[in-house]
Amino acid sequence: MQETEEARRHREKKARIKAVKDRLYAARTGRKGLLLVHTGRGKGKTTAAFGLVLRTLGHGRRVGIVQFVKGRRETGERRFLERFPDLVEIRVMGEGFTWETQDRERDVRAARAALDEARRMLAAPDFHLVVLDELNIVLRYGYLPVEEVLAVLAARRPDLHVVVTGRNAPPALIEAADLVTEMTEIKHPFRAGIGAQAGIEY
Amino acid sequence: MQETEEARRHREKKARIKAVKDRLYAARTGRKGLLLVHTGRGKGKTTAAFGLVLRTLGHGRRVGIVQFVKGRRETGERRFLERFPDLVEIRVMGEGFTWETQDRERDVRAARAALDEARRMLAAPDFHLVVLDELNIVLRYGYLPVEEVLAVLAARRPDLHVVVTGRNAPPALIEAADLVTEMTEIKHPFRAGIGAQAGIEY
Repeated sequence: MQETEEARRHREKKARIKAVKDRLYAARTGRKGLLLVHTGRGKGKTTAAFGLVLRTLGHGRRVGIVQFVKGRRETGERRFLERFPDLVEIRVMGEGFTWETQDRERDVRAARAALDEARRMLAAPDFHLVVLDELNIVLRYGYLPVEEVLAVLAARRPDLHVVVTGRNAPPALIEAADLVTEMTEIKHPFRAGIGAQAGIEY
Repeated sequence: MQETEEARRHREKKARIKAVKDRLYAARTGRKGLLLVHTGRGKGKTTAAFGLVLRTLGHGRRVGIVQFVKGRRETGERRFLERFPDLVEIRVMGEGFTWETQDRERDVRAARAALDEARRMLAAPDFHLVVLDELNIVLRYGYLPVEEVLAVLAARRPDLHVVVTGRNAPPALIEAADLVTEMTEIKHPFRAGIGAQAGIEY
């Protein structure tokens, strides 16, 4: 069958793109534990971190999770991950800081306890990924000094990947990170009067 | 114990925020199947969709996934989800369109087969969430008409949530969506010569 002119141009263009990509990937052979930050006002910061958890579990590697802020309700992802105690260690620092409390002293104590858990996980020999969920919120409120948190992150096992989530990531954390993604809200159903729904918001 | 002036101000401010939030949440009682779009050049589009999958599984609800673009390698999330055949139906349309092929006709056929799978899942009675992964890429290449895809999405079961991922979401899809998040790349480790790593990129 004769190849059309359009098909030939398409094939040649795709071949050029593939050649460039192959060269690019071949040159990128570095390996190290990455510091990832998910920030911004949009959705998907924590959700994308849990997507990385899923990915890591698929490789049979262990994950540690510290949730610095306890949400309004039991979340689906937490309930699911608790079924894999051999692969997932999850610490919800829910006795203290929540969106609901109005007691700063207690929130600071909870943030510090969460940081202690994080420090322990970051030094442990067996995690492939550690998620520090909503740590940015705690930093934003000034409940932990940014410098101390950065020192804890820098002292982690060198091959360990860490994801920090939460809006308003401080500039010093962005500076220290390897990969930073900002989630930007383009459109949100709350504006149209739609409430939080299972599987979407929690 | 006497409350300090600072603690009192903090408590009162948090109380005001909580009151506003409570009113806001109370007013948002609508329920419907949402059309979510994750787009932008940054990371986290597919990953956040899989985070929603995890969340949905935690609620014991079923998920359908159509991957319109087969990646370079077996991914961790796919491997993990294949362990739950009762809860997750996953279709990887890998025989055709991939980043690697240079055959437009074959890619178009694969895109159409993927859309057929999507149409079936969107009408099925038992899914809570359907992920149409990298559908935007297929639209971007012009392998499927946007109008036809929008009609398929609009004809879905009314209480079904759908997530469409991929950069370059077409304006008409953004218009039709309930929630759109743009993932923006602020910093990427490829720039520093770090290669793709298990649990992070795949």
